[in-house]
Amino acid sequence: MIMARIFNFSAGPAALPEAVLQQAADEMLDWHGSGTSVMEMSHRGKEFMGIAAQAEADLRELMAIPANYKVLFLQGGASAQFEMIPINLLRGKGAADYVHTGEWAKKAIKAAKAFGNVNVVASAEDKAFTYAPAQASWKLDKNAAYVHYTANETIGGVEFHWTPDTGDVPLVCDMSSNILSKPVDVSKFGLIYAGAQKNIGPAGLTIVIIRDDLVGHAQPTPPAMLDYKTHVDAESMYNTPPTYAIYIAGLVFQWLKKNGGVAAMERQNIAKANLLYDYLATTDFYRNPVRKEDRSRMNVPFTLKDAALDEEFLKGAKSRGMAQLKGHRSVGGMRASIYNAMPVAGVEALVAYMKEFAAQKG
Amino acid sequence: MIMARIFNFSAGPAALPEAVLQQAADEMLDWHGSGTSVMEMSHRGKEFMGIAAQAEADLRELMAIPANYKVLFLQGGASAQFEMIPINLLRGKGAADYVHTGEWAKKAIKAAKAFGNVNVVASAEDKAFTYAPAQASWKLDKNAAYVHYTANETIGGVEFHWTPDTGDVPLVCDMSSNILSKPVDVSKFGLIYAGAQKNIGPAGLTIVIIRDDLVGHAQPTPPAMLDYKTHVDAESMYNTPPTYAIYIAGLVFQWLKKNGGVAAMERQNIAKANLLYDYLATTDFYRNPVRKEDRSRMNVPFTLKDAALDEEFLKGAKSRGMAQLKGHRSVGGMRASIYNAMPVAGVEALVAYMKEFAAQKG
Repeated sequence: MIMARIFNFSAGPAALPEAVLQQAADEMLDWHGSGTSVMEMSHRGKEFMGIAAQAEADLRELMAIPANYKVLFLQGGASAQFEMIPINLLRGKGAADYVHTGEWAKKAIKAAKAFGNVNVVASAEDKAFTYAPAQASWKLDKNAAYVHYTANETIGGVEFHWTPDTGDVPLVCDMSSNILSKPVDVSKFGLIYAGAQKNIGPAGLTIVIIRDDLVGHAQPTPPAMLDYKTHVDAESMYNTPPTYAIYIAGLVFQWLKKNGGVAAMERQNIAKANLLYDYLATTDFYRNPVRKEDRSRMNVPFTLKDAALDEEFLKGAKSRGMAQLKGHRSVGGMRASIYNAMPVAGVEALVAYMKEFAAQKG
Repeated sequence: MIMARIFNFSAGPAALPEAVLQQAADEMLDWHGSGTSVMEMSHRGKEFMGIAAQAEADLRELMAIPANYKVLFLQGGASAQFEMIPINLLRGKGAADYVHTGEWAKKAIKAAKAFGNVNVVASAEDKAFTYAPAQASWKLDKNAAYVHYTANETIGGVEFHWTPDTGDVPLVCDMSSNILSKPVDVSKFGLIYAGAQKNIGPAGLTIVIIRDDLVGHAQPTPPAMLDYKTHVDAESMYNTPPTYAIYIAGLVFQWLKKNGGVAAMERQNIAKANLLYDYLATTDFYRNPVRKEDRSRMNVPFTLKDAALDEEFLKGAKSRGMAQLKGHRSVGGMRASIYNAMPVAGVEALVAYMKEFAAQKG
């Protein structure tokens, strides 16, 4: 096996822990003496049922998920959740409240409008989505079906470092890009959802954590595949789930537990983000437009003073083993995605290269 | 790596070619010198776009898919298709025609009823779903939106060894469990769908082959995730697709091409099925209830004369390296699933054991 691993700054699907990939490779043809790959196991057989149960138990432990929440392993990504949430949670109420913080919030808002009234109760559009609107500014409706926000915007690089308080109105959160990056108090949420492909595992798996009382109210009669009750009743096995993805996610959960859980991840994620943001504060060769207190620890976008140097910057990074640094087309410049699996060494290498490049070209 | 591979007769997720698993293990940490796993690649990056394009090209070649058909790589399994098909293909017409051949047809029929009128135009229920109803007996409606049938029933072990002719009414087929097991004339179909987890790759990937003119007629306004047009317009990248599953499916397609394509698979599948059925014809210790000409080449259910011996049979099989032979709970007895990746040696080992067991206990 060629072993020339790079530092992969992809916004997603993103880097996975090397130890997890190594274990998956070792177990590919024979999982624990079963003589089969996890890919080849019946989802209703005891081996795979054990893998799935362990993954759920580990996730519950890592996030301290209360007993009155169901954990679902679904398909369809956050995009399917953008539609399942209004279909299931509007419950005949007049409207739902959404906070608009950038590209991902926008997609959630657009999808929800097909199923009911949406009130945008706060928006950072006035400052080009470079901050997280303070809760005091949110025009919440006490009768809203739920309040939806996006915990981290991967394109803008804006992250909520606090959890909103919406009282009795269920709080719904797209946590796709910062789940498991720090501790959160799950009991403050009605529903948390996350595509797996950043901090969890392979694309094709979506985690939904839903409070019991929100299950079973889907209306108008939705396709069964889009009804949370279908999947709760079948314990995520209404039909064949993405078994291999669940297995890999389970390995990542074990890796997290071995490495100090989400509290340790948070410490390391802060340290990694600070390496980048502290350097950005010392230079005007690079620029990040986000308000300081709302800067994402998962995605760090930055532009070069002279965009004509972008290609050269990327080429030099690649030759030093750093990939996927090109910014999103809507923002330009660069973006370093530094999810859990990105080691400190990767960010150190990036900062060293940024300094070197700025010294040469600045 | 422990190398004690067994003969895995699971009905799905099912055995994959060993060569494919070996290659996936070898490439797990570093795909083609990229320094990343396929799991870690952006779905919009050139490496993964290349993998997806190659998988589609190989599938088109293997099945000789005409240019006026789209190939989609979706999520949600056949169960999502059970709902997407009526949502997209009813097109305001009065009803759709369904052929009822067993458990899977039943699920398709039940799901479709939520979206429109369903006419069961033929059913094998009169003989406990042990045969495929001849087309002459189908009460087809010339104005039906489409005709749906299940090419292979994994539980009953009944397979269509012929393709229905429905004239101008689009023919829709659940080919989940026998796709790529033999050549089919795609031009006879309006839509073919298949969950990947039998003859293609890991669960979590669903292949849809749809004729151009059937795209874009979804009604009433469905969730975008359930509209074929969404996925056709986005070339299966409306949101992150199940990337690793597509990569594995691509490796299986290459393995098929290297091994003579679907014509060679058909020859081998006939040989494997004959080994089992020819032996069953010589004994009354085991029994298969399916009409001879409709016996499945993918799933061979059989019962022991004395069901009290079932456990002992399974235990003996396991000790000889043969797993997943227990029959579906609705049928009882045994079931040997012998998809493309099951080698002839596996079926030979099974027949030898069946003879030995019958001689001891008969």
